Amino acid sequence: MTAEPAPVRQPRADHARRIADILRHQVHTGSFDDALPSEAELAAEFDASRNTVRNALTLLKEEGLIDRAPKLGTRVATRKLDHGLDTLLGLQETFSDRGTVRNEVRVAMRVGAPTAVARRLDLAPGEQVVYIERLRYLADLPLSLDLTYLAPDIGTALLDHDLEHTDIFVLIEQLAGQRLGHAELTLEAVSADAHTASILEVPASAALLMLERLTRLEDGRPVDLEYIRMRGDRITMRGSLARATPEWKVL
Amino acid sequence: MTAEPAPVRQPRADHARRIADILRHQVHTGSFDDALPSEAELAAEFDASRNTVRNALTLLKEEGLIDRAPKLGTRVATRKLDHGLDTLLGLQETFSDRGTVRNEVRVAMRVGAPTAVARRLDLAPGEQVVYIERLRYLADLPLSLDLTYLAPDIGTALLDHDLEHTDIFVLIEQLAGQRLGHAELTLEAVSADAHTASILEVPASAALLMLERLTRLEDGRPVDLEYIRMRGDRITMRGSLARATPEWKVL
Repeated sequence: MTAEPAPVRQPRADHARRIADILRHQVHTGSFDDALPSEAELAAEFDASRNTVRNALTLLKEEGLIDRAPKLGTRVATRKLDHGLDTLLGLQETFSDRGTVRNEVRVAMRVGAPTAVARRLDLAPGEQVVYIERLRYLADLPLSLDLTYLAPDIGTALLDHDLEHTDIFVLIEQLAGQRLGHAELTLEAVSADAHTASILEVPASAALLMLERLTRLEDGRPVDLEYIRMRGDRITMRGSLARATPEWKVL
Repeated sequence: MTAEPAPVRQPRADHARRIADILRHQVHTGSFDDALPSEAELAAEFDASRNTVRNALTLLKEEGLIDRAPKLGTRVATRKLDHGLDTLLGLQETFSDRGTVRNEVRVAMRVGAPTAVARRLDLAPGEQVVYIERLRYLADLPLSLDLTYLAPDIGTALLDHDLEHTDIFVLIEQLAGQRLGHAELTLEAVSADAHTASILEVPASAALLMLERLTRLEDGRPVDLEYIRMRGDRITMRGSLARATPEWKVL
């Protein structure tokens, strides 16, 4: 590698991906009110051929981010919702300015805790936990399917409350009389199986964000274990990271 | 909703998903050395029928997490790699105990910055930036395809260095003579387009984790804008969250 490398010829598909990524971020952050610039403008902006620009727009159209029509040009189809990776918030808390979250409660019952669940909630294997399954909507479109295991004391009390319109985080804090503390989480991209796809109203194999999260009370007790599948076409996780470990995470 | 809800009958597919999610996490965290428990053991553990357990195992097999064979039983096929959501680390820094990361440098050149890139890197539109495209391997399997735009001073110096074996984060800190500070990022789940799928050696439409990240030096200057596609079947993002905003993030 030299200080003045010769420009490498890029196949058109590589260049289209590069353009699509930049446009994707601009769509997410609201850089375009509604209409995207014309193909000619984009070609000039990205120093690319019209064909390459068209390929980039096709990629974004396939993701459902933009619509294209011969006379109307290119328009933003959906703007994804930003969910926070910086602080622990429920869906309704997060989207309070975007509308009302409605939870369709599919299951709410006591079950014997499988060993792996018991271990994470600091319970004895087989001890009763409360299991709640919710399909969560914003603006009448499914956002996520949430499978939740709750510690028995808090879970049982929680069954008396309005699960359809209230975040479980908010209810836990009311019932426990203390704030939530920290959560440990993993995030993955998975393809929707056929059954899940039909529940979330997405095509089979659509990309989902899978969040697994164990949430603790301020005093450190684990009370809430969740498996959450979010529609990839509706949710973006947004956060920040520091190069050094921040002090509160060293604890 | 009453304090003693009648158990709701769950269709088998719902129950299978519940079991699959718990097993998925156990596979990730190494709860099973290699072999999973037998169908009969799992049926007892999850209070489910053998058919439901089989459906759960089929879901995990379709995700590529486990293998199943008539005589051999069920075995862990791949354990995903954990990438950190708590601190800002390069791939090689993250996986130093898992092997050597090799970067196939597909492109390394100066380009005029598209307006959106220039704005994020605090440059004038059209100003030259350095663009680097890398396909990153661990243990001879592709992990991610990274598209990187670098500030001109650091980017130009960086072209003289060993991009094939060194994380860009490490090179930036050497060249800038200061540590990296914070990064702002978004994470999405997207389906692989056909061209990207062939580069990452995954089936078309496979789920990918798409990371967009702007990284700043300790003094606050943005120097590194990346668009990273990670194979969903190989990477899990792992982190922790606090209910209250930690002090360093309020800044």
